[in-house]
Amino acid sequence: MNYPNGKPFNPNQTRGGIMNRERRSKIEYGGRGMSLENDIERSNQFYIKNKQAVIHKKPTPVQVVHVDYPKRSQAVIKEAYFRTPSTTDYNGIYKGFYIDFEAKETKNKTSFPLQNIHEHQVKHMKQVLSLGGIVFLLIRFKMQDEVFLLPFKHFLPFWERCQQGGKKSISVEEIQENSYYIPYQYQPRLNYLNAVDKLILDESEDRV
Amino acid sequence: MNYPNGKPFNPNQTRGGIMNRERRSKIEYGGRGMSLENDIERSNQFYIKNKQAVIHKKPTPVQVVHVDYPKRSQAVIKEAYFRTPSTTDYNGIYKGFYIDFEAKETKNKTSFPLQNIHEHQVKHMKQVLSLGGIVFLLIRFKMQDEVFLLPFKHFLPFWERCQQGGKKSISVEEIQENSYYIPYQYQPRLNYLNAVDKLILDESEDRV
Repeated sequence: MNYPNGKPFNPNQTRGGIMNRERRSKIEYGGRGMSLENDIERSNQFYIKNKQAVIHKKPTPVQVVHVDYPKRSQAVIKEAYFRTPSTTDYNGIYKGFYIDFEAKETKNKTSFPLQNIHEHQVKHMKQVLSLGGIVFLLIRFKMQDEVFLLPFKHFLPFWERCQQGGKKSISVEEIQENSYYIPYQYQPRLNYLNAVDKLILDESEDRV
Repeated sequence: MNYPNGKPFNPNQTRGGIMNRERRSKIEYGGRGMSLENDIERSNQFYIKNKQAVIHKKPTPVQVVHVDYPKRSQAVIKEAYFRTPSTTDYNGIYKGFYIDFEAKETKNKTSFPLQNIHEHQVKHMKQVLSLGGIVFLLIRFKMQDEVFLLPFKHFLPFWERCQQGGKKSISVEEIQENSYYIPYQYQPRLNYLNAVDKLILDESEDRV
Protein backbone atom coordinates (compact mmCIF):
# COMPACT_ATOMS: atom_id res chain seq x y z
CA MET A 1 0.00 0.00 0.00
CA ASN A 2 2.37 2.71 1.10
CA TYR A 3 5.23 0.70 -0.27
CA PRO A 4 7.11 2.15 -3.27
CA ASN A 5 6.30 -0.27 -6.05
CA GLY A 6 9.05 -2.14 -7.76
CA LYS A 7 12.51 -2.85 -6.48
CA PRO A 8 13.04 -3.70 -2.86
CA PHE A 9 14.87 -1.19 -0.72
CA ASN A 10 18.52 -2.12 -0.17
CA PRO A 11 19.90 -0.44 2.93
CA ASN A 12 23.50 -1.29 2.06
CA GLN A 13 23.36 0.52 -1.24
CA THR A 14 22.16 3.69 0.42
CA ARG A 15 25.06 3.65 2.82
CA GLY A 16 27.76 4.16 0.23
CA GLY A 17 27.67 1.21 -2.09
CA ILE A 18 27.79 -2.51 -1.68
CA MET A 19 30.36 -3.71 0.80
CA ASN A 20 32.13 -7.01 0.63
CA ARG A 21 30.24 -9.81 2.24
CA GLU A 22 32.60 -10.31 5.15
CA ARG A 23 32.69 -6.72 6.25
CA ARG A 24 28.98 -6.26 5.83
CA SER A 25 28.18 -9.26 7.97
CA LYS A 26 30.11 -7.84 10.90
CA ILE A 27 28.60 -4.37 10.86
CA GLU A 28 25.35 -3.61 12.62
CA TYR A 29 23.88 -0.19 12.03
CA GLY A 30 22.12 0.42 15.33
CA GLY A 31 20.99 -3.16 15.48
CA ARG A 32 19.91 -3.62 11.87
CA GLY A 33 19.62 -7.27 11.10
CA MET A 34 18.39 -7.84 14.64
CA SER A 35 15.69 -10.40 14.92
CA LEU A 36 12.12 -9.32 14.42
CA GLU A 37 11.36 -10.57 17.90
CA ASN A 38 14.00 -8.29 19.41
CA ASP A 39 12.76 -5.31 17.46
CA ILE A 40 9.19 -5.88 18.57
CA GLU A 41 10.29 -6.35 22.17
CA ARG A 42 12.10 -2.99 22.08
CA SER A 43 9.14 -1.27 20.48
CA ASN A 44 6.81 -2.73 23.09
CA GLN A 45 9.04 -1.46 25.89
CA PHE A 46 9.08 1.96 24.23
CA TYR A 47 5.27 1.98 23.92
CA ILE A 48 4.81 1.01 27.56
CA LYS A 49 7.27 3.65 28.73
CA ASN A 50 5.45 6.29 26.69
CA LYS A 51 2.03 5.08 27.86
CA GLN A 52 0.95 4.45 24.26
CA ALA A 53 0.16 0.77 24.45
CA VAL A 54 0.59 -2.32 26.60
CA ILE A 55 1.54 -5.20 24.32
CA HIS A 56 3.51 -8.26 25.41
CA LYS A 57 4.84 -11.44 23.91
CA LYS A 58 3.32 -14.48 25.49
CA PRO A 59 5.76 -16.91 27.08
CA THR A 60 6.57 -20.02 25.06
CA PRO A 61 4.24 -22.75 26.27
CA VAL A 62 6.15 -25.51 28.02
CA GLN A 63 4.82 -28.82 29.33
CA VAL A 64 6.60 -29.40 32.63
CA VAL A 65 7.02 -33.10 33.47
CA HIS A 66 9.52 -33.19 36.32
CA VAL A 67 10.65 -30.57 38.81
CA ASP A 68 13.36 -30.88 41.48
CA TYR A 69 13.03 -28.88 44.68
CA PRO A 70 16.55 -28.71 46.10
CA LYS A 71 16.78 -27.56 49.72
CA ARG A 72 17.45 -23.87 50.21
CA SER A 73 17.42 -23.13 46.49
CA GLN A 74 15.19 -22.49 43.55
CA ALA A 75 13.03 -25.17 41.94
CA VAL A 76 14.70 -26.71 38.87
CA ILE A 77 12.69 -28.04 35.95
CA LYS A 78 14.46 -31.27 34.96
CA GLU A 79 12.17 -32.51 32.20
CA ALA A 80 9.88 -30.45 30.03
CA TYR A 81 8.75 -30.19 26.41
CA PHE A 82 7.85 -27.36 24.07
CA ARG A 83 4.17 -27.29 23.20
CA THR A 84 2.58 -25.89 20.04
CA PRO A 85 1.07 -22.49 20.79
CA SER A 86 -2.70 -22.36 20.35
CA THR A 87 -2.86 -18.60 19.95
CA THR A 88 -0.69 -15.90 18.46
CA ASP A 89 2.49 -14.70 20.13
CA TYR A 90 1.53 -11.11 20.90
CA ASN A 91 -1.48 -9.35 22.32
CA GLY A 92 -2.39 -6.27 24.27
CA ILE A 93 -4.22 -2.96 24.23
CA TYR A 94 -3.77 0.16 22.10
CA LYS A 95 -6.18 3.12 21.84
CA GLY A 96 -8.77 0.99 23.58
CA PHE A 97 -8.49 -1.73 20.92
CA TYR A 98 -7.60 -5.31 21.58
CA ILE A 99 -4.47 -6.00 19.51
CA ASP A 100 -3.50 -9.53 18.47
CA PHE A 101 -0.73 -10.55 16.11
CA GLU A 102 1.79 -13.13 15.04
CA ALA A 103 5.34 -12.24 13.98
CA LYS A 104 7.32 -14.31 11.50
CA GLU A 105 10.62 -14.00 9.69
CA THR A 106 11.57 -15.80 6.51
CA LYS A 107 14.88 -16.25 4.73
CA ASN A 108 12.93 -16.79 1.54
CA LYS A 109 13.49 -13.87 -0.84
CA THR A 110 10.45 -14.20 -3.06
CA SER A 111 7.61 -15.44 -0.88
CA PHE A 112 6.34 -16.12 2.61
CA PRO A 113 5.78 -19.87 3.18
CA LEU A 114 2.42 -20.54 4.83
CA GLN A 115 3.81 -23.49 6.78
CA ASN A 116 5.05 -20.79 9.19
CA ILE A 117 1.49 -20.40 10.44
CA HIS A 118 -0.48 -23.08 12.28
CA GLU A 119 -4.10 -23.86 11.58
CA HIS A 120 -5.21 -23.26 15.18
CA GLN A 121 -3.55 -19.85 15.06
CA VAL A 122 -5.66 -18.97 12.03
CA LYS A 123 -8.74 -20.20 13.86
CA HIS A 124 -7.80 -18.04 16.83
CA MET A 125 -7.28 -14.96 14.65
CA LYS A 126 -10.63 -15.50 12.91
CA GLN A 127 -12.39 -15.56 16.27
CA VAL A 128 -10.64 -12.43 17.48
CA LEU A 129 -11.42 -10.57 14.26
CA SER A 130 -15.10 -11.47 14.53
CA LEU A 131 -15.14 -10.01 18.06
CA GLY A 132 -13.77 -6.67 16.88
CA GLY A 133 -10.06 -7.12 17.56
CA ILE A 134 -7.24 -5.64 15.48
CA VAL A 135 -5.53 -8.73 14.05
CA PHE A 136 -2.53 -8.95 11.77
CA LEU A 137 0.77 -10.59 10.93
CA LEU A 138 4.16 -8.90 11.07
CA ILE A 139 6.30 -10.48 8.37
CA ARG A 140 10.01 -9.81 7.96
CA PHE A 141 11.96 -10.80 4.87
CA LYS A 142 15.38 -11.35 6.37
CA MET A 143 17.41 -10.99 3.19
CA GLN A 144 15.85 -7.71 2.19
CA ASP A 145 15.45 -6.69 5.86
CA GLU A 146 11.95 -5.46 5.19
CA VAL A 147 8.96 -5.69 7.49
CA PHE A 148 5.29 -5.68 6.50
CA LEU A 149 2.10 -5.54 8.50
CA LEU A 150 -0.37 -7.85 6.76
CA PRO A 151 -3.92 -7.41 8.12
CA PHE A 152 -5.41 -10.79 8.95
CA LYS A 153 -8.41 -10.24 6.70
CA HIS A 154 -6.02 -9.79 3.77
CA PHE A 155 -4.03 -12.81 4.83
CA LEU A 156 -7.08 -15.08 4.97
CA PRO A 157 -7.73 -15.38 1.18
CA PHE A 158 -4.13 -16.57 0.68
CA TRP A 159 -4.55 -19.08 3.47
CA GLU A 160 -7.78 -20.33 1.93
CA ARG A 161 -6.18 -20.53 -1.50
CA CYS A 162 -3.59 -22.85 0.03
CA GLN A 163 -6.23 -24.94 1.82
CA GLN A 164 -7.99 -25.42 -1.52
CA GLY A 165 -4.84 -26.87 -3.03
CA GLY A 166 -3.35 -23.64 -4.34
CA LYS A 167 0.03 -22.03 -3.69
CA LYS A 168 1.62 -22.87 -0.35
CA SER A 169 3.03 -19.37 0.00
CA ILE A 170 2.30 -15.68 -0.46
CA SER A 171 4.56 -13.94 -2.97
CA VAL A 172 6.43 -10.77 -2.04
CA GLU A 173 4.33 -8.86 -4.57
CA GLU A 174 1.09 -10.11 -3.03
CA ILE A 175 2.33 -9.07 0.38
CA GLN A 176 3.36 -5.63 -0.89
CA GLU A 177 -0.09 -5.11 -2.39
CA ASN A 178 -1.94 -6.14 0.73
CA SER A 179 0.23 -4.83 3.53
CA TYR A 180 1.48 -1.72 5.22
CA TYR A 181 5.23 -1.39 4.83
CA ILE A 182 6.99 -0.54 8.10
CA PRO A 183 10.13 1.53 7.49
CA TYR A 184 12.88 1.33 10.10
CA GLN A 185 13.29 4.61 11.98
CA TYR A 186 15.15 6.02 14.93
CA GLN A 187 13.06 5.33 17.99
CA PRO A 188 11.47 2.89 18.22
CA ARG A 189 13.33 1.23 15.37
CA LEU A 190 10.26 -0.73 14.29
CA ASN A 191 7.33 1.60 14.90
CA TYR A 192 4.66 -0.88 13.95
CA LEU A 193 1.90 1.07 15.72
CA ASN A 194 2.14 3.63 12.89
CA ALA A 195 0.96 0.89 10.57
CA VAL A 196 -1.67 -0.18 13.11
CA ASP A 197 -3.01 3.40 13.04
CA LYS A 198 -3.50 3.08 9.28
CA LEU A 199 -5.15 -0.30 9.72
CA ILE A 200 -7.55 1.10 12.33
CA LEU A 201 -8.38 4.02 10.02
CA ASP A 202 -9.00 1.75 7.04
CA GLU A 203 -11.14 -0.59 9.12
CA SER A 204 -13.29 2.27 10.37
CA GLU A 205 -13.75 3.52 6.80
CA ASP A 206 -14.75 0.02 5.74
CA ARG A 207 -17.45 0.07 8.38
CA VAL A 208 -18.96 3.37 7.15
CA MET B 1 -22.40 -5.19 45.73
CA ASN B 2 -24.86 -7.83 44.58
CA TYR B 3 -23.78 -10.05 47.44
CA PRO B 4 -26.28 -10.72 50.21
CA ASN B 5 -24.77 -9.02 53.21
CA GLY B 6 -23.89 -11.02 56.24
CA LYS B 7 -23.22 -14.71 56.52
CA PRO B 8 -21.27 -16.49 53.82
CA PHE B 9 -23.10 -19.03 51.73
CA ASN B 10 -22.37 -22.61 52.78
CA PRO B 11 -23.03 -25.08 49.98
CA ASN B 12 -22.84 -28.11 52.25
CA GLN B 13 -25.61 -26.89 54.51
CA THR B 14 -27.97 -26.48 51.56
CA ARG B 15 -27.41 -30.05 50.47
CA GLY B 16 -28.98 -31.73 53.46
CA GLY B 17 -26.91 -30.75 56.44
CA ILE B 18 -23.28 -30.93 57.35
CA MET B 19 -21.60 -34.19 56.40
CA ASN B 20 -18.71 -35.73 58.24
CA ARG B 21 -15.34 -34.50 57.11
CA GLU B 22 -14.20 -37.72 55.45
CA ARG B 23 -17.27 -38.24 53.31
CA ARG B 24 -17.48 -34.59 52.33
CA SER B 25 -13.89 -34.51 51.15
CA LYS B 26 -14.51 -37.33 48.69
CA ILE B 27 -17.65 -35.92 47.13
CA GLU B 28 -17.51 -33.46 44.29
CA TYR B 29 -20.80 -31.94 43.21
CA GLY B 30 -20.19 -31.42 39.51
CA GLY B 31 -16.67 -30.31 40.19
CA ARG B 32 -17.29 -28.06 43.18
CA GLY B 33 -14.07 -27.44 44.99
CA MET B 34 -12.27 -27.53 41.66
CA SER B 35 -9.48 -25.06 41.40
CA LEU B 36 -10.28 -21.54 40.28
CA GLU B 37 -7.88 -22.04 37.39
CA ASN B 38 -9.79 -25.07 36.16
CA ASP B 39 -13.11 -23.28 36.44
CA ILE B 40 -11.83 -20.29 34.47
CA GLU B 41 -10.32 -22.58 31.84
CA ARG B 42 -13.68 -24.31 31.34
CA SER B 43 -15.50 -20.99 31.17
CA ASN B 44 -13.03 -19.69 28.61
CA GLN B 45 -13.54 -22.77 26.45
CA PHE B 46 -17.29 -22.28 26.73
CA TYR B 47 -17.01 -18.61 25.75
CA ILE B 48 -14.85 -19.41 22.73
CA LYS B 49 -17.20 -22.18 21.60
CA ASN B 50 -20.14 -19.80 21.87
CA LYS B 51 -18.28 -16.97 20.14
CA GLN B 52 -18.76 -14.72 23.18
CA ALA B 53 -15.15 -13.98 24.01
CA VAL B 54 -11.59 -15.07 23.35
CA ILE B 55 -9.75 -15.13 26.65
CA HIS B 56 -6.73 -17.30 27.41
CA LYS B 57 -4.38 -17.97 30.28
CA LYS B 58 -0.84 -17.06 29.43
CA PRO B 59 1.68 -19.87 29.69
CA THR B 60 3.84 -19.88 32.81
CA PRO B 61 7.07 -18.09 31.93
CA VAL B 62 10.01 -20.46 32.01
CA GLN B 63 13.69 -19.64 31.59
CA VAL B 64 15.12 -22.46 29.48
CA VAL B 65 18.80 -23.12 30.17
CA HIS B 66 19.56 -26.44 28.54
CA VAL B 67 17.79 -28.41 25.80
CA ASP B 68 18.65 -31.87 24.48
CA TYR B 69 17.88 -32.71 20.86
CA PRO B 70 17.80 -36.50 20.73
CA LYS B 71 17.90 -37.98 17.22
CA ARG B 72 14.52 -38.82 15.73
CA SER B 73 12.61 -37.51 18.70
CA GLN B 74 11.27 -34.39 20.34
CA ALA B 75 13.51 -31.78 21.96
CA VAL B 76 13.73 -32.24 25.74
CA ILE B 77 14.24 -29.34 28.11
CA LYS B 78 16.74 -30.62 30.70
CA GLU B 79 17.25 -27.50 32.78
CA ALA B 80 14.85 -24.61 33.21
CA TYR B 81 13.55 -22.28 35.91
CA PHE B 82 10.24 -20.66 36.67
CA ARG B 83 10.29 -16.91 36.18
CA THR B 84 8.13 -14.33 37.94
CA PRO B 85 5.35 -13.20 35.59
CA SER B 86 5.49 -9.51 34.69
CA THR B 87 1.86 -9.28 33.69
CA THR B 88 -1.41 -10.83 34.78
CA ASP B 89 -2.32 -14.42 33.94
CA TYR B 90 -5.33 -13.83 31.72
CA ASN B 91 -6.19 -11.54 28.86
CA GLY B 92 -8.34 -11.40 25.76
CA ILE B 93 -11.27 -9.73 24.06
CA TYR B 94 -14.95 -9.46 25.00
CA LYS B 95 -17.54 -7.16 23.40
CA GLY B 96 -14.69 -5.31 21.75
CA PHE B 97 -13.05 -4.59 25.12
CA TYR B 98 -9.56 -5.61 26.09
CA ILE B 99 -9.94 -7.82 29.17
CA ASP B 100 -7.09 -8.31 31.62
CA PHE B 101 -7.20 -10.06 34.96
CA GLU B 102 -5.41 -12.01 37.63
CA ALA B 103 -6.96 -14.99 39.42
CA LYS B 104 -6.05 -15.96 42.96
CA GLU B 105 -7.27 -18.41 45.56
CA THR B 106 -6.73 -18.18 49.27
CA LYS B 107 -7.25 -20.66 52.09
CA ASN B 108 -7.57 -17.71 54.42
CA LYS B 109 -11.16 -17.45 55.70
CA THR B 110 -11.26 -13.83 56.76
CA SER B 111 -9.08 -11.91 54.34
CA PHE B 112 -7.15 -11.90 51.09
CA PRO B 113 -3.38 -11.53 51.69
CA LEU B 114 -1.86 -8.93 49.37
CA GLN B 115 1.38 -10.87 49.13
CA ASN B 116 -0.47 -12.93 46.51
CA ILE B 117 -0.06 -10.03 44.08
CA HIS B 118 3.28 -8.78 42.75
CA GLU B 119 4.17 -5.12 42.42
CA HIS B 120 4.90 -5.36 38.68
CA GLN B 121 1.49 -6.91 38.17
CA VAL B 122 -0.10 -3.90 39.84
CA LYS B 123 1.97 -1.62 37.62
CA HIS B 124 0.82 -3.58 34.58
CA MET B 125 -2.84 -3.37 35.60
CA LYS B 126 -2.54 0.38 36.21
CA GLN B 127 -1.20 0.88 32.70
CA VAL B 128 -3.92 -1.23 31.13
CA LEU B 129 -6.64 0.60 33.07
CA SER B 130 -5.32 3.96 31.91
CA LEU B 131 -5.53 2.76 28.29
CA GLY B 132 -9.19 1.83 28.63
CA GLY B 133 -8.94 -1.87 29.42
CA ILE B 134 -11.30 -3.81 31.67
CA VAL B 135 -9.08 -4.88 34.56
CA PHE B 136 -9.94 -6.89 37.64
CA LEU B 137 -9.03 -9.67 40.04
CA LEU B 138 -10.93 -12.91 40.45
CA ILE B 139 -10.56 -13.97 44.06
CA ARG B 140 -11.72 -17.30 45.42
CA PHE B 141 -12.02 -18.04 49.11
CA LYS B 142 -11.36 -21.77 49.12
CA MET B 143 -12.94 -22.57 52.46
CA GLN B 144 -16.20 -20.81 51.69
CA ASP B 145 -15.90 -21.73 47.98
CA GLU B 146 -16.92 -18.22 47.00
CA VAL B 147 -15.62 -16.23 44.05
CA PHE B 148 -15.56 -12.45 43.71
CA LEU B 149 -14.70 -10.14 40.87
CA LEU B 150 -12.85 -7.19 42.36
CA PRO B 151 -12.42 -4.35 39.84
CA PHE B 152 -8.82 -3.17 39.78
CA LYS B 153 -9.75 0.41 40.58
CA HIS B 154 -11.41 -0.81 43.77
CA PHE B 155 -8.43 -3.01 44.56
CA LEU B 156 -5.94 -0.16 44.21
CA PRO B 157 -6.83 1.76 47.41
CA PHE B 158 -6.26 -1.41 49.47
CA TRP B 159 -2.93 -1.96 47.74
CA GLU B 160 -1.92 1.63 48.46
CA ARG B 161 -3.03 1.34 52.07
CA CYS B 162 -0.63 -1.60 52.38
CA GLN B 163 2.20 0.29 50.66
CA GLN B 164 1.74 3.09 53.17
CA GLY B 165 2.27 0.68 56.03
CA GLY B 166 -1.35 -0.29 56.60
CA LYS B 167 -3.01 -3.70 56.56
CA LYS B 168 -1.31 -6.34 54.45
CA SER B 169 -4.60 -7.85 53.39
CA ILE B 170 -8.15 -7.06 52.30
CA SER B 171 -10.84 -8.34 54.63
CA VAL B 172 -13.71 -10.46 53.33
CA GLU B 173 -16.12 -7.64 54.23
CA GLU B 174 -14.08 -5.13 52.23
CA ILE B 175 -14.08 -7.48 49.28
CA GLN B 176 -17.84 -8.06 49.56
CA GLU B 177 -18.44 -4.32 49.56
CA ASN B 178 -16.26 -3.64 46.55
CA SER B 179 -16.80 -6.69 44.35
CA TYR B 180 -19.30 -8.49 42.20
CA TYR B 181 -20.14 -11.87 43.67
CA ILE B 182 -20.05 -14.68 41.09
CA PRO B 183 -22.51 -17.43 41.96
CA TYR B 184 -21.78 -20.92 40.62
CA GLN B 185 -24.26 -22.02 37.99
CA TYR B 186 -24.82 -24.82 35.53
CA GLN B 187 -22.91 -23.91 32.38
CA PRO B 188 -20.39 -22.46 32.49
CA ARG B 189 -19.98 -23.18 36.18
CA LEU B 190 -18.18 -19.89 36.79
CA ASN B 191 -19.85 -17.39 34.49
CA TYR B 192 -17.54 -14.53 35.29
CA LEU B 193 -18.49 -12.58 32.16
CA ASN B 194 -21.85 -11.87 33.84
CA ALA B 195 -19.92 -9.91 36.42
CA VAL B 196 -17.81 -8.30 33.70
CA ASP B 197 -21.04 -7.08 32.07
CA LYS B 198 -21.94 -5.31 35.33
CA LEU B 199 -18.44 -3.86 35.57
CA ILE B 200 -18.65 -2.54 31.99
CA LEU B 201 -22.05 -1.00 32.73
CA ASP B 202 -20.85 0.65 35.93
CA GLU B 203 -17.72 1.97 34.19
CA SER B 204 -19.77 3.50 31.38
CA GLU B 205 -22.08 5.14 33.92
CA ASP B 206 -19.05 6.54 35.74
CA ARG B 207 -17.95 8.12 32.46
CA VAL B 208 -21.28 9.88 31.89
